[in-house]
Amino acid sequence: MNTSEIAQSTAQVISKEDLLKHWQGHRSLTRKVIEAFPEKEFFEFSIGGMRPFSALTSEFLAMGAPAMKGIVERQEEPYQENSEELTTKAQYLEKWDRATEDINKYWGQLSTENFSETFNLFGAYNFPVIQNILYLIDNEIHHRGQGYVYLRALGIEPPFFWER
Amino acid sequence: MNTSEIAQSTAQVISKEDLLKHWQGHRSLTRKVIEAFPEKEFFEFSIGGMRPFSALTSEFLAMGAPAMKGIVERQEEPYQENSEELTTKAQYLEKWDRATEDINKYWGQLSTENFSETFNLFGAYNFPVIQNILYLIDNEIHHRGQGYVYLRALGIEPPFFWER
Repeated sequence: MNTSEIAQSTAQVISKEDLLKHWQGHRSLTRKVIEAFPEKEFFEFSIGGMRPFSALTSEFLAMGAPAMKGIVERQEEPYQENSEELTTKAQYLEKWDRATEDINKYWGQLSTENFSETFNLFGAYNFPVIQNILYLIDNEIHHRGQGYVYLRALGIEPPFFWER
Repeated sequence: MNTSEIAQSTAQVISKEDLLKHWQGHRSLTRKVIEAFPEKEFFEFSIGGMRPFSALTSEFLAMGAPAMKGIVERQEEPYQENSEELTTKAQYLEKWDRATEDINKYWGQLSTENFSETFNLFGAYNFPVIQNILYLIDNEIHHRGQGYVYLRALGIEPPFFWER
């Protein structure tokens, strides 16, 4: 056994591949939540002065794939929401699917070593890459939970949380 | 360098210690959300027929520390909510703090190898330990997001999401 083989056999809390699968599972659930909204309510419905689900989805889209591009290319481009104007759910879903592919592509360019390196994401969040990535995932779960309340308040059954 | 030293220097996507810190950071934020609710609304306020935040907190308490105990002791005890009757926010917060210590204690008994082992959590969720643990964390983020909407609907400013 040489050094490289020993390294490869070392246990991981979570592998790079499994963390991507975990994130994409969550993104697949968020896609179902977008689909569950009626067209009008996706853009207009809100509670307590919070943003409608379309605006939350714009945030997810401005974070996920652009963040991964920044991390991989070491480009500290500032955070930019609504880089394209989207006015229908169908346009959001199409951009969602492009982001899914982009995230997979950039993820493939990360090494396990990269996760512990510090990177100033969007020129503003100077943390280890793993922390920046967990923030992307957690922020989506957090605001999607908000979307679940919107759907329930609209009398719509949301998708099961464990359905990925 | 012997084999053990090489193994220890191998890169991890996330270390065991950092994943605990990540979870406890989220638990600290959830504690702030519990504190932000007025006593009455913690037990009574809801939107769209969903559970009040006290019931969601009961779920977090029935999952976190009991799940870790089950995983470490390989005991497939069934999921049990409200094992003690809690009728005040102060009682919930006290139980929350006990759970924080219990989670730290059980976490210390897990090895990195354990995370990829399959365990039938609560005798019902037969998945690798890492998946079961991520579910505990994600479920808390998800329902806490629901709590944020309750607070906003009550006209109360929730804690910042990045405050851990």
